[in-house]
Amino acid sequence: MYKIKGSIWIEGGDGAFIGIGRIKLLEKIGEFGSITVAAKSMKMSYRHAWELINSMNKQAKRPLVETTAGGVGGGGTRVTPEGEKAIKIYKDLQKRFHLFNEKESKKIKL
Amino acid sequence: MYKIKGSIWIEGGDGAFIGIGRIKLLEKIGEFGSITVAAKSMKMSYRHAWELINSMNKQAKRPLVETTAGGVGGGGTRVTPEGEKAIKIYKDLQKRFHLFNEKESKKIKL
Repeated sequence: MYKIKGSIWIEGGDGAFIGIGRIKLLEKIGEFGSITVAAKSMKMSYRHAWELINSMNKQAKRPLVETTAGGVGGGGTRVTPEGEKAIKIYKDLQKRFHLFNEKESKKIKL
Repeated sequence: MYKIKGSIWIEGGDGAFIGIGRIKLLEKIGEFGSITVAAKSMKMSYRHAWELINSMNKQAKRPLVETTAGGVGGGGTRVTPEGEKAIKIYKDLQKRFHLFNEKESKKIKL
């Protein structure tokens, strides 16, 4: 009858580091290879997307998103292996959090 | 280095049922015996406090807050035993959630 819900995020040295919105942004950058397109797909300003990426890159040991300039193939933005790892870590954490919530939901007698 | 944080709440038939703000309101009503004073102490309008109480009372099997009218001792508002139980259930849930977060924080390698 009652259901426990919640939200969960990871804080680093500067406060917010990784949460559900930032992970979605990383996934969209991986999908589109472009911050502009990723931000647009989330109805987010480029500036805000860039600030989120900057915040993540500064707080992680290595950047989660990398932008390469010009060259033969043109510039591009990619999610680094550390970025992929961050996505997996957050999603695994969320799975365990959902299990916690399900288990706790069954205990509530009110 | 990284720290997991989160928020957790209980949903009932109408959506939000019990969360950190509603529990604080119950505690303040218990402390002051008055919705007006409790709301004021949280810088909340009486109307909003009343809506939160109404939402909780409607979704619980028995009311969590009870108001009695006039009489020799004057009217009064009290947190019922079910209300006290709800406070305890939520606080215990939060304690387990904090333990979950601490344990998960130690696992993060980024």
